[in-house]
Amino acid sequence: MKELKVGLLGIGTVGGGTYTVITRNQSEIARRIGGNIRIVQVADRNLELARQITGGQVNVTDDAFAVVNNPEVDVVVELIGGYTIAKELVLKAIANGKHVVTANKALLAVHGNEIFKAAAEKGVIVAFEAAVAGGIPIIKALREGLSANKIEWVAGIINGTTNFILTEMRDKGLAFADVLKEAQRLGYAEADPTFDVEGIDAAHKLTIMASIAFGTPMQFEQAYTEGITKLTSQDIRYAQELGYRIKLLGISKKTEAGVELRVHPTLIPEKRLIANVDGAMNAVVVKGDAVGPTLYYGAGAGAEPTASAVVADLVDIARLQGTSAEQRVAFLGYQLDQQQALPVLPIADVHSGYYLRLRASDKPGVMADVTKILADLKISIDAMLQKEPEEGEAEADIIILTHTTQEKIMDAAIAKIEALPAIDGALTKIRLETLSR
Amino acid sequence: MKELKVGLLGIGTVGGGTYTVITRNQSEIARRIGGNIRIVQVADRNLELARQITGGQVNVTDDAFAVVNNPEVDVVVELIGGYTIAKELVLKAIANGKHVVTANKALLAVHGNEIFKAAAEKGVIVAFEAAVAGGIPIIKALREGLSANKIEWVAGIINGTTNFILTEMRDKGLAFADVLKEAQRLGYAEADPTFDVEGIDAAHKLTIMASIAFGTPMQFEQAYTEGITKLTSQDIRYAQELGYRIKLLGISKKTEAGVELRVHPTLIPEKRLIANVDGAMNAVVVKGDAVGPTLYYGAGAGAEPTASAVVADLVDIARLQGTSAEQRVAFLGYQLDQQQALPVLPIADVHSGYYLRLRASDKPGVMADVTKILADLKISIDAMLQKEPEEGEAEADIIILTHTTQEKIMDAAIAKIEALPAIDGALTKIRLETLSR
Repeated sequence: MKELKVGLLGIGTVGGGTYTVITRNQSEIARRIGGNIRIVQVADRNLELARQITGGQVNVTDDAFAVVNNPEVDVVVELIGGYTIAKELVLKAIANGKHVVTANKALLAVHGNEIFKAAAEKGVIVAFEAAVAGGIPIIKALREGLSANKIEWVAGIINGTTNFILTEMRDKGLAFADVLKEAQRLGYAEADPTFDVEGIDAAHKLTIMASIAFGTPMQFEQAYTEGITKLTSQDIRYAQELGYRIKLLGISKKTEAGVELRVHPTLIPEKRLIANVDGAMNAVVVKGDAVGPTLYYGAGAGAEPTASAVVADLVDIARLQGTSAEQRVAFLGYQLDQQQALPVLPIADVHSGYYLRLRASDKPGVMADVTKILADLKISIDAMLQKEPEEGEAEADIIILTHTTQEKIMDAAIAKIEALPAIDGALTKIRLETLSR
Repeated sequence: MKELKVGLLGIGTVGGGTYTVITRNQSEIARRIGGNIRIVQVADRNLELARQITGGQVNVTDDAFAVVNNPEVDVVVELIGGYTIAKELVLKAIANGKHVVTANKALLAVHGNEIFKAAAEKGVIVAFEAAVAGGIPIIKALREGLSANKIEWVAGIINGTTNFILTEMRDKGLAFADVLKEAQRLGYAEADPTFDVEGIDAAHKLTIMASIAFGTPMQFEQAYTEGITKLTSQDIRYAQELGYRIKLLGISKKTEAGVELRVHPTLIPEKRLIANVDGAMNAVVVKGDAVGPTLYYGAGAGAEPTASAVVADLVDIARLQGTSAEQRVAFLGYQLDQQQALPVLPIADVHSGYYLRLRASDKPGVMADVTKILADLKISIDAMLQKEPEEGEAEADIIILTHTTQEKIMDAAIAKIEALPAIDGALTKIRLETLSR
């Protein structure tokens, strides 16, 4: 095997990790593939940092296009992030006949259809294991390990920042805003945390997994996204009293009517393995028709865990040099010409269980009114928790868990319940998934 | 891509599942690989069963060698099991230039070195995802997904029968023998359960994983194997009181002195995800130097879960037709000529934490004697549980959890403790792994 020559775009956290892992594990990697992976050029705006990390062993530049146009480079590793320049660089690398490895989920979720089409035309590989769930080889599991299956659904904790925040809220009973501040201080959350806490980052990753699972194009713009900013530690506690944990899940299911593609806080029974994935860790459950449920767990971010995925992609590419497109795994599991643009269900059409929290005056008849509204709409109750009014208060919290129903039916019920005179203010609604089938 | 023509040896549980999955998911598979996988011949001693399952769509024979010698067959799927005929058939298939897919862990753990050497000489693929942990794509994760890492250790619940038995013993407080009978009645355990309950099946699978993780040849004959037949529900309960679960773990670690390769009942902290893998499910934790700990969970046995792995191997082979050996993943992750026969540590040299249960007369000074013996040997105590003597008894159980020490030092301590006059009978020793580093 000839040596694989790598051009690295960006030598920040993940880029630095990639350099470290390739250097430190050079001999293991060589023993595996019978050849070498060598970084021949690094581009970073911070030339000083690039020189420091590479110790003068590698040509460094602040011009990313110099790497993409470098005839010596076989494969470009894009670790810059964002949609604009990253897209230009990736498309240019492809046009130059270079393979691409990227950790950029935003880029792929939004521009993946265009990028993979270009790569197919040039016969190059675009690999992206690091784009979803960091070091967990979930892309390989979905694309290859479970290729015998009709995938029925995918559900994952695919954002470490929010999982860290939810874990802290539960463990310490703190409010979202306080934990976020602490997370920012510790470096678990960015200064502008919007992408993480509003579920956008998770929706990018979910979009990619759904495409592979169901053979659809990327349909990010149709994903439903709801973050964790409105979650209260009270709801987390009530959920726990009922035997559930609240996680920010990315869920994609194939149904008769289309594909569900949704990110939102979700109650999960505490006995499910994924309910016990805490801190910044990630996990994805994949349900296949033959294999049943399988789960993949590990670090979803960080320098070396993410580099582990980047370098695994490089190892694959090193090995696949000289192969034809049909000898390689299709970019997104299914052949591009076999993709089907299944409709993405609006959230109103999705089926889910629900956690409802309402505040009601402590009078006889309230529960009868509420349960009648639910019964009339054929929403069946799974569990109920009625708290005593606090000292000196006339109202108390009532928590209801429902079995599966359609979101629009639940919303109709909620509107009717909120209109009851004994009900104070808006209901809190959180979706619930048993992940049992 | 040309059609991949499959010859199936054995159409029992897994063979039947394989037939079903290929047939049912034909169109998904074709959309993935851009070609077809077709079973062209089936061999089974039970011709009637073979005809019934295949519905007259496929040539059936009771002569397995007819399949192996069939010039139309591209790949032989060996689902017969055992060492003798299976080995002959696999070697003959290889000699005939056919690729092989097998679920036979015993065959690979014992004769793998010879089989892979033969396959390398003929330039054919021998794939075996189904041989370890059923439907969990753990071979792919180890060989490819984590290829950037130095693997530090692997620890897995890789035998569903024993995990089912241990789960029942814990949940119902029953004795091993009673649960085994129930498991046999339900079909979770074989009439002769020796391979499962004595840890031999797990050692086969561990041998294969260790070879991939550390780049060693198969060294099954040097694996340490201890089953679950002597475990009591009392120990399971005591462990639980101390915050641990007992699982039959296959553990392989790379150390300075060599490789640990051992299967035995193991205490694991209950907060570890793998401690919560119950029933017949399997899970494997892999610790890589870059990625950290990752976990893979799913069904470790059963018709369709195992078929999921068999068919995934067929999908890989369909795609890889026409590639050279260097364009394919090495059979065992590392190139065969790069394997290193690292010494397997005798169990006396292994380092582990320990659970000790002793029965002592309820007299002052006993604990001082015991703890002095441990202290003299520099064994530090992590936790201790002293039970009150039962009504009318003069002796009580004492449980000690120790930090990591070497097995031979622990055995020396145990011999000294057993020699104390106040100690009644033999100590119970169970190894303990925190799986934290």
